[in-house]
Amino acid sequence: MRPPLLLLFMVATELAGQTRPRGRDLGIPFPGRPGPNNAITDVPGVAVGHATIVRGAGKLVPREGPVRTGVTAILPRPQGDWDFVMAATFNQNGNGDMTGTNWVKESGFLEGPILLTGTHSVGTVRDAAVQWQIARGRPFLFSYPLVAETFDFLNDANGEHVKSAHVFAALDSARTGRVVEGAVGGGTGMGCNGFKGGIGTSSRVVAVDSTTAFTLGVLVQCNYFGDLHILGAPVGREITDLGLCTTLDGPLSRPWSRGIPRCADTGGTRQEGGSLDDDVTGPETGRGSIVVIVATDAPLLPHQLERIVRRVGMGLGRLGSWAANGSGDLFLAFSTANREDARAANYVGQVSPVAQIKMLANEKIDGFFRATIDATEEAVVNAMLAAETTTGADGIRAHGLPGDRVVAALRKYGRMR
Amino acid sequence: MRPPLLLLFMVATELAGQTRPRGRDLGIPFPGRPGPNNAITDVPGVAVGHATIVRGAGKLVPREGPVRTGVTAILPRPQGDWDFVMAATFNQNGNGDMTGTNWVKESGFLEGPILLTGTHSVGTVRDAAVQWQIARGRPFLFSYPLVAETFDFLNDANGEHVKSAHVFAALDSARTGRVVEGAVGGGTGMGCNGFKGGIGTSSRVVAVDSTTAFTLGVLVQCNYFGDLHILGAPVGREITDLGLCTTLDGPLSRPWSRGIPRCADTGGTRQEGGSLDDDVTGPETGRGSIVVIVATDAPLLPHQLERIVRRVGMGLGRLGSWAANGSGDLFLAFSTANREDARAANYVGQVSPVAQIKMLANEKIDGFFRATIDATEEAVVNAMLAAETTTGADGIRAHGLPGDRVVAALRKYGRMR
Amino acid sequence: MRPPLLLLFMVATELAGQTRPRGRDLGIPFPGRPGPNNAITDVPGVAVGHATIVRGAGKLVPREGPVRTGVTAILPRPQGDWDFVMAATFNQNGNGDMTGTNWVKESGFLEGPILLTGTHSVGTVRDAAVQWQIARGRPFLFSYPLVAETFDFLNDANGEHVKSAHVFAALDSARTGRVVEGAVGGGTGMGCNGFKGGIGTSSRVVAVDSTTAFTLGVLVQCNYFGDLHILGAPVGREITDLGLCTTLDGPLSRPWSRGIPRCADTGGTRQEGGSLDDDVTGPETGRGSIVVIVATDAPLLPHQLERIVRRVGMGLGRLGSWAANGSGDLFLAFSTANREDARAANYVGQVSPVAQIKMLANEKIDGFFRATIDATEEAVVNAMLAAETTTGADGIRAHGLPGDRVVAALRKYGRMR
Amino acid sequence: MRPPLLLLFMVATELAGQTRPRGRDLGIPFPGRPGPNNAITDVPGVAVGHATIVRGAGKLVPREGPVRTGVTAILPRPQGDWDFVMAATFNQNGNGDMTGTNWVKESGFLEGPILLTGTHSVGTVRDAAVQWQIARGRPFLFSYPLVAETFDFLNDANGEHVKSAHVFAALDSARTGRVVEGAVGGGTGMGCNGFKGGIGTSSRVVAVDSTTAFTLGVLVQCNYFGDLHILGAPVGREITDLGLCTTLDGPLSRPWSRGIPRCADTGGTRQEGGSLDDDVTGPETGRGSIVVIVATDAPLLPHQLERIVRRVGMGLGRLGSWAANGSGDLFLAFSTANREDARAANYVGQVSPVAQIKMLANEKIDGFFRATIDATEEAVVNAMLAAETTTGADGIRAHGLPGDRVVAALRKYGRMR
Repeated sequence: MRPPLLLLFMVATELAGQTRPRGRDLGIPFPGRPGPNNAITDVPGVAVGHATIVRGAGKLVPREGPVRTGVTAILPRPQGDWDFVMAATFNQNGNGDMTGTNWVKESGFLEGPILLTGTHSVGTVRDAAVQWQIARGRPFLFSYPLVAETFDFLNDANGEHVKSAHVFAALDSARTGRVVEGAVGGGTGMGCNGFKGGIGTSSRVVAVDSTTAFTLGVLVQCNYFGDLHILGAPVGREITDLGLCTTLDGPLSRPWSRGIPRCADTGGTRQEGGSLDDDVTGPETGRGSIVVIVATDAPLLPHQLERIVRRVGMGLGRLGSWAANGSGDLFLAFSTANREDARAANYVGQVSPVAQIKMLANEKIDGFFRATIDATEEAVVNAMLAAETTTGADGIRAHGLPGDRVVAALRKYGRMR
Repeated sequence: MRPPLLLLFMVATELAGQTRPRGRDLGIPFPGRPGPNNAITDVPGVAVGHATIVRGAGKLVPREGPVRTGVTAILPRPQGDWDFVMAATFNQNGNGDMTGTNWVKESGFLEGPILLTGTHSVGTVRDAAVQWQIARGRPFLFSYPLVAETFDFLNDANGEHVKSAHVFAALDSARTGRVVEGAVGGGTGMGCNGFKGGIGTSSRVVAVDSTTAFTLGVLVQCNYFGDLHILGAPVGREITDLGLCTTLDGPLSRPWSRGIPRCADTGGTRQEGGSLDDDVTGPETGRGSIVVIVATDAPLLPHQLERIVRRVGMGLGRLGSWAANGSGDLFLAFSTANREDARAANYVGQVSPVAQIKMLANEKIDGFFRATIDATEEAVVNAMLAAETTTGADGIRAHGLPGDRVVAALRKYGRMR
Repeated sequence: MRPPLLLLFMVATELAGQTRPRGRDLGIPFPGRPGPNNAITDVPGVAVGHATIVRGAGKLVPREGPVRTGVTAILPRPQGDWDFVMAATFNQNGNGDMTGTNWVKESGFLEGPILLTGTHSVGTVRDAAVQWQIARGRPFLFSYPLVAETFDFLNDANGEHVKSAHVFAALDSARTGRVVEGAVGGGTGMGCNGFKGGIGTSSRVVAVDSTTAFTLGVLVQCNYFGDLHILGAPVGREITDLGLCTTLDGPLSRPWSRGIPRCADTGGTRQEGGSLDDDVTGPETGRGSIVVIVATDAPLLPHQLERIVRRVGMGLGRLGSWAANGSGDLFLAFSTANREDARAANYVGQVSPVAQIKMLANEKIDGFFRATIDATEEAVVNAMLAAETTTGADGIRAHGLPGDRVVAALRKYGRMR
Repeated sequence: MRPPLLLLFMVATELAGQTRPRGRDLGIPFPGRPGPNNAITDVPGVAVGHATIVRGAGKLVPREGPVRTGVTAILPRPQGDWDFVMAATFNQNGNGDMTGTNWVKESGFLEGPILLTGTHSVGTVRDAAVQWQIARGRPFLFSYPLVAETFDFLNDANGEHVKSAHVFAALDSARTGRVVEGAVGGGTGMGCNGFKGGIGTSSRVVAVDSTTAFTLGVLVQCNYFGDLHILGAPVGREITDLGLCTTLDGPLSRPWSRGIPRCADTGGTRQEGGSLDDDVTGPETGRGSIVVIVATDAPLLPHQLERIVRRVGMGLGRLGSWAANGSGDLFLAFSTANREDARAANYVGQVSPVAQIKMLANEKIDGFFRATIDATEEAVVNAMLAAETTTGADGIRAHGLPGDRVVAALRKYGRMR
């Protein structure tokens, strides 16, 4: 009844695939070896889908538009495979919402899909995810879908533009393989470090002995604001133009946007937030948020996944974040290992009350800690590099991070040749 | 556009007020001294409202009915007063959903209303609460409403029968003073300890010295299943009839309901769960959940409120609960103290970055621990006593706990005369 | 060099075994089926040992005596078996110290023995436990022994009377089989609910299907003060004599002890704390603490053990505790399952980086929740029933809970025949 | 009775003050403005003292030496001032011990001194701190001293060389003003990032409006191993010599030390751990630990201090740490604000049960987040720069980080001129 098969609202760039280079395409020497897609989908079975909603332009008319929002879906297991995955969560700063986490923490399992969207659409997405599971035949009495958000300030954020059909579309379109990044899905209306943000991903291969390796992948919905460093170089401070600006004559209607300047040729001056070199560490408030999803096929137990996800903030620290008071830095990690046995562990059907599962030795976990930190950094950079310059509600424009200027900055600081 | 002023779907009992006696009306000697309403609304400024949706009867037709659901709203401060309250949460068992808690834990503040509903309506209620705050003029950029749930098994639970209008109605109807209990609002479709459950409340006056006293109130949405004890007496085991039954010829359509017997004159045998006196402690799974909201006007800081809310489970332990694997035992406590100063503490408007607030001495907190435990016990009993026998989807009937039989059981065990 | 083989300071009662009846000996119908010893040692391999130090009488002379203290050791695995056990901790109220828990929480494993003692001897016991492991040949680079405490108010508590030799003695004497309870080991100087307290234990057999059962055992060091209920009956309020008293003419030297009356024939009036039936819930502060150790051979993962240990407070709630501000209610649970494989899970020696382990289905955990609550209640009662009336520093006397009066109270409230 | 007034075991460098330049002396442009001492003691009233124990040389003879250990004491308030401070803790990786934290978390207050030492001396230091408080007249019934540790691998770590007298000496010598850094006190036997480590400190002034500023200070006991970055530059990889080496002919007796090479002119090759640029992210285990203490005079409540201390790991992330499995990364933050009123908040003496306290607005906390991250980075660098090359047990030598080579590396990567 519900899910439309043809989604006319999905933007052309998404269908065509992204065209902007990723970090490694530019030659940025991120540490570690990625999987074949350098994406969360390198973890076998993990699928990602987007529904992107772009409509209208110009002045914000509440509940009409312009609309710059969407939904990103991550399926921990392939379409139609309802087996649980072990999971854990951690907040580096809890100024954000992630539904469904109570049962993850209690049971150690995530039982369904992960969805990312804008702040004020979390409810719609959550209940639609319940209905989608019913429609797709998952057997359950009740469900607590996992929905996380960041605030889509380029969007008519209070307009309730995300509908159940978009949620179904994101979920149904979820695929393994390459992940479309940038201003798509849940990331459509987001900024990141003062530039255009959105969805980014990266992965690492982690060897635990000479014959065994696992994969760890990260996907971010990046909307936070910090003092952007890449590989330790202060890239953000090297690009002082290209700040948020508006194509309209001000002042703009929303209080937070009143100070946004008129776009000149190169955009406004990037001045929010201040730098880490301020003589006096000032009290300014960081804006935005970041949701980070970590997937792995290593057999990590829930308490080990919590250890993993507690390291994500160390990657954000390297990027120059301080997990600002205004930021929802919410993280979740899951493991696709123990696929068959997790079913027993949850006593689904007439199986034994005691399951046989695998567990990675704690002594072998360091590689996964480092992979988490490294892939978080790279996924954030990929999100920014992939995102096209976007002009949203009230003509507010967030610029895509220009790859050539990133390269120039990294060369200046001796981090690439 | 949205909020209908006249809500025809609200049931008659709610408008008329409840008619069944409460625990103290029956003479049950609960410990401690309650406030004037013996309700969470004894905490000055706290308001409660319900929207109750009852429609249809007989066999379950998905998305049609029968409908036995609703929404209960708790306003920590009076209508139109948007000042924050300090708050904290705790899960005794996290098989349930409560949105908006990340920011409560991080900031120490709850910024808006609390809403209770059925499991699969959490999303609708959450987003509607965003829209209600906009419609009622709360200034904010984004909001994470606090919505908690238990599973309304007497309802067409997957039918999405709760609409935004119901949420607006519950919120707009929130009042101080007496609280309607039982099968109303979010509690409409719930059971409790094998009887009909729903909303219950109680309060305590806590003196901290000879001249100063504060109030602590508890409101529960009771849908859990345990081995019911009241004041230590095994009341549940004294009432072995009056179990869940169905008015239809079986078998019923939903897997969990297949074993429910046909209603005889006195209902089915109460046999779910087993008792604490079983010779071998069996593995049976408890059903249902309980949400407990604790309010106080004592100036407790967030970490002290967490201490309070961590005691709720001790009250459930006294009632014979074991916080079963299948149960979402989710608790939140808030303090209305520091009303003016909390505004400064959140730097709303042009006030000082440093607020003057009050703090109760830790040495004085024991009375609040005991009040929490005592009022939790009494609120659960009130929820059960107030709830009328209700017949819901598939003709499943949950019986109201009969007050005379509770009295008889308490007399048998020497707990009242 | 260090461990004396013959410990003259161990009291006669300990060598002879306790003579007072336990709860089930009195016919108290505690729910559930215990193991053969009704003790934590019913979990195969778990061993318990005590070193009890009793010396002197009369007025407190700091650093001289009287001495009423000791050490209780729990070995999760048999002597000489250094394999780790999965473990988790929880505080119902954190007014107490338990060393070594950081690594338990992080790794999910407890790597060595558990030791219980008096508050101001924790350090001595901790470092002695390091030395004992070295002396007994455990291979490690560093160790964080798990030492918990309650405050031995019958003792010259600041006198540093526990020495390394006592710690070695408690550890070396740890045995499987029957556990000596009452005023022994770490429990020597403790009170409980206004009576003499100390060490108590109980166990339950938990079936998970028709052919498989596991054992869960609890050991407490009981020193807390509440409104004693047993099986829901208000036993404490039925025994209003037998309160703390002193054999000396007062006033006593320590501030907290100034109000303790001279012992009459039947002891002082039990008046501390007040009852749950107070008209106004008062602010009085509970005294003392309780450490609860839960052991099981069920294959529970660390996050599942945390679920177990989070239920202990529900058992204390049934007993009439409110986890007072002044009380250190600290709990730890461990599982002896996955014995061989936990070694791999920690990559000890040249084994695989991935271990095969077992996991109990979450759906089968309810029996363990109930067993934890039930065995906690029974272990506390056993601790009190086993403890002989003890007169300590400053002639302060704590009375053993008289079994006949417990039976009379339970009969009065219809809880036994 | 106990504390010797003259401590002959304190090393000369400590009495004379350190002579090696600190980071800012070298011109390293750390962000932010420090206080006058650039030390934790810039927070008014905070005092630091060390007892350093250096004795013997050459081959390790267990329980004899060589001895390279000690104790560092931090007094949150001046000598003789026993008022509590609000406090909170967080572990980035819990492979370490910190006693006394349960009550900090529960009450929100730290009630006494903080002590840092070697892993196997924690117990001695803890019980000695109890006795010191008694000897110095603090009124209390019981105390849970806060003692944290890292593993002093340059020391005869199992030799129990720290005695009560050293603890008294560290505490009695605690002074405000300049803090001696490097191989002193608890840091005597430590390494850091493959170089000599130990004690380091730094501070920041944080303005919250145009007229009000507070101070935040950090003190570390640095013993962890990572891929050292300073201001984003890969300094560790620029100094590939100066690794751990031994002056003895091997092999050495302790298993972990068998691979340590003979010292050549410039020391061994720094090869432990690998770099973040490894092609395959390897499983090697980081060694060591770091304890970080954060102090501030800003009026932060316990839940706000927890937010502060949860950011410390972001600073370690910037430094190139991944909070390795083998590392105890344990942090504590406290606030000296609310000095008079915290007394009331704990109901000490006959004061009101409700205290008036101050609270910083959450909206003003970002500056403190950034200061925590920045000062953590600088304190670690100061610890390494201050520490003289030290040769310990088994002739193992850890080299002081040479300032000139740090400067050269920072210039190479464009981070200083």
